[in-house]
Amino acid sequence: MPEPVGSYPFLKGHGTHNDFVLLPDHDGALHADLSAARVRALCDRRGGIGGDGVLRVVRAEADTAAEWFMDYRNADGSVSEMCGNGIRVFALHLVQEGLVDPTLPLPIQTRDGIKTITFGERRSEQITVDMGSPRLLGETKVSIGHQVWSATHVDMGNPHAVAFLDDGTDLADVGPLLEPPTHDPAVYPAGVNVEFVVRRGERHVAMRVHERGSGETQSCGTGACAVAVAAAVLDGVPGEPMRDVDYRVDLPGGTLTIRWTSDDRVLMTGPALIVASGTTDL
Amino acid sequence: MPEPVGSYPFLKGHGTHNDFVLLPDHDGALHADLSAARVRALCDRRGGIGGDGVLRVVRAEADTAAEWFMDYRNADGSVSEMCGNGIRVFALHLVQEGLVDPTLPLPIQTRDGIKTITFGERRSEQITVDMGSPRLLGETKVSIGHQVWSATHVDMGNPHAVAFLDDGTDLADVGPLLEPPTHDPAVYPAGVNVEFVVRRGERHVAMRVHERGSGETQSCGTGACAVAVAAAVLDGVPGEPMRDVDYRVDLPGGTLTIRWTSDDRVLMTGPALIVASGTTDL
Repeated sequence: MPEPVGSYPFLKGHGTHNDFVLLPDHDGALHADLSAARVRALCDRRGGIGGDGVLRVVRAEADTAAEWFMDYRNADGSVSEMCGNGIRVFALHLVQEGLVDPTLPLPIQTRDGIKTITFGERRSEQITVDMGSPRLLGETKVSIGHQVWSATHVDMGNPHAVAFLDDGTDLADVGPLLEPPTHDPAVYPAGVNVEFVVRRGERHVAMRVHERGSGETQSCGTGACAVAVAAAVLDGVPGEPMRDVDYRVDLPGGTLTIRWTSDDRVLMTGPALIVASGTTDL
Repeated sequence: MPEPVGSYPFLKGHGTHNDFVLLPDHDGALHADLSAARVRALCDRRGGIGGDGVLRVVRAEADTAAEWFMDYRNADGSVSEMCGNGIRVFALHLVQEGLVDPTLPLPIQTRDGIKTITFGERRSEQITVDMGSPRLLGETKVSIGHQVWSATHVDMGNPHAVAFLDDGTDLADVGPLLEPPTHDPAVYPAGVNVEFVVRRGERHVAMRVHERGSGETQSCGTGACAVAVAAAVLDGVPGEPMRDVDYRVDLPGGTLTIRWTSDDRVLMTGPALIVASGTTDL
């Protein structure tokens, strides 16, 4: 059982329906010993508040270039590096509390290094995060039962297999995604996130994702980035993918806009929303 | 879209992991026009707060014998009559707010009439609700694929099929319960809640439930009552079921204690917990 700390504040928010419990803990005193058991209790969708993870909001150590540290935990209580949907919610919270200036780039420390956030004019709708550089690692295959798809191996810090569906088929035709799609274990020894993609228009795609360890989810930030990168390769000429243009990626939980820049950064822009705040003693 | 009412208070709580968003609205002014869309937004487990339903807490009309009315809505926004797990959470909230005296029986108006709640010494653990009289309607069968079970038809205001598993089999052997078990449509023209039951000891059973319209759930109050009634019939002699003794019923989400009285009432006792409170503008 977690150590009792009495009643403490929380917020709940989401980015494209990837949802989080936020724990304000600015000076790090309240949840210095945040236990896996407490994270699980908070994320429990029936016994607790419910979320895909916890975002603890704490000041970074004095010698870093960022003022705030996103202490991200998965719903199972494990420590995690970075979440592209979560960091938008985290950044929106800092703006709503008046803790940062939304007209300036906002560096946020994560366990995957410092990530820089910028806000568009419609602040809660247009939060951009630099997701780093992709690595394109060739072609592979994924399958479900007797259906087989060619897929592009894209690494966004985590492994992805991006499968474009044939013309005339739709995302529903893939079926319920109850099990992980079969993949080549030599290519993905630690498993893989699998994206199924259809074209909706010029630089506009729709996708479903099976996340390694989570099953089908409403949204996956790195998955949307991998999909946009794979589409930009297909839309370009050999050796020259489409750069510096926006791709619209529709996910079940919302829409993200992805741009692969000529200096090889993937910029993801999307909404964030804080829906509730209060206190809990979980 | 729901009509905006700005920011308003909520609480979240559960009874044996059947969970609810509570909306305090004592004078009925705040949510007089509570829309199905707002209920769905509140109950959305990723975009909102999340719950199996909403319990609006409002004073009853002046000419009723109860001071409080449980305005219960299902997660899909539809109006509902009564919920045995929800009413315990509702009653605990009234006690925690100092609005009622827990040493006295507490009548609560519902759309299924007035229900009377009593509190045990360990208040949040022992909340008893009179669930009314059962109707025993004979034997039937339910099946999943090639597995067939004999089942007892018990009506608790809603229809149940209670299937005791053979000795030597366990609840896991029933399988994943992804689809409604097959039932006799002549017996259950409007569908049925199906309970699978094993004995754990004397007057102690464990169950899983497939709820009509909801799939497998963590807890079902009327289902636990139907199971205890069926067990009391099996444990008695013909025409004389076991009365006035406690049955312990273990559900995936917790434990309920059920007593079928000699004046033909089913009393269900179980826990309730409020886990969070705050404000939302959903």
